[in-house]
Amino acid sequence: MEQPLLQRLIAAFTCLPGVGEKTAQRFSYYLLERDREGAAFLCASLQESLERITHCERCRMFTEEPLCWICRDESRDPSSLCVVENPAGFMALEATTDFSGFYFVLHGRLSPLDGIGPEEIGMGLLEERLAGGEVKELILATGSTVEGDVTAHLIGELAAKHGISATRLAQGVPAGGDLEFVDATTLAQAFESRRKY
Amino acid sequence: MEQPLLQRLIAAFTCLPGVGEKTAQRFSYYLLERDREGAAFLCASLQESLERITHCERCRMFTEEPLCWICRDESRDPSSLCVVENPAGFMALEATTDFSGFYFVLHGRLSPLDGIGPEEIGMGLLEERLAGGEVKELILATGSTVEGDVTAHLIGELAAKHGISATRLAQGVPAGGDLEFVDATTLAQAFESRRKY
Repeated sequence: MEQPLLQRLIAAFTCLPGVGEKTAQRFSYYLLERDREGAAFLCASLQESLERITHCERCRMFTEEPLCWICRDESRDPSSLCVVENPAGFMALEATTDFSGFYFVLHGRLSPLDGIGPEEIGMGLLEERLAGGEVKELILATGSTVEGDVTAHLIGELAAKHGISATRLAQGVPAGGDLEFVDATTLAQAFESRRKY
Repeated sequence: MEQPLLQRLIAAFTCLPGVGEKTAQRFSYYLLERDREGAAFLCASLQESLERITHCERCRMFTEEPLCWICRDESRDPSSLCVVENPAGFMALEATTDFSGFYFVLHGRLSPLDGIGPEEIGMGLLEERLAGGEVKELILATGSTVEGDVTAHLIGELAAKHGISATRLAQGVPAGGDLEFVDATTLAQAFESRRKY
């Protein structure tokens, strides 16, 4: 096939998660055929984002400023710190809960086999924060996976070392979950963690 | 939410077909978090494509040169011309058939309600080509939809005017299609167009 540039554009789109050759082709044709204006906007936004979006100096969330908009908000409660794996978790909690403390974004979870150790997930910065003495409650909002558990365990130990109480998101039957369709591990955990009604 | 640039990046990704807010968010986070190199490559490819990819002067396919790689290929048979709705159809036929003639890309199909008339789908250029006298067989490879039918009808009339024989892709039961799952219209068409076995 002798269309180097178009082929390169299609290949470039496959860098997106879940986008294969076929979808990348569809994206490329669509933009070139019907939305060159949108494509130019995407291009400009992406370029500017790559240049200007970095990590917040305090919580490692994405931000264009030295501190993110949550860390700049002085009305929030500095005694609560919620540790999340990634910006998506940060945004999901911020959108659905009335949590008024601060966050800390790991940008990953412990996974030694993939070369992700304590340094990669910002343990140094987190320990500094915990040593500061302001944080009274540490909320472990890592995912309910093996790596999420291990990561929560590590951070829980860090909190204990600094005499800070740690809590973890409840694990159990999801809302709308019919018992017969809930997987065995979840059901066993939910049963074990049953609460007074 | 006070993240104007990140919000703009997410909004920009929703210009892609089938990509909503949620997927756009996933794309944005993924690129910023894990593949800034891929994002830069996407950005550069997209920009260069927008600047350099235009339509082939003869067949309207995407190309970086005045003529596309098929129209530049002198070993192909100029007596066959295959009319497709879009570049995706062009590529699909080129990949799956041994067609050795040339193509003509409409970049759409007749749809007066959407403001797509004969001029928008390049009828002027196509008529010039047919009037040239080289084309002996015109293959109508528009989709099997109402608009595809109407478009095929219009182009079929154009071919008749120039004394060129026109054929259309067969409509019928798709490969692997169990009769009980084939829709009624397709089945009726396939029955009507039954061929000697």
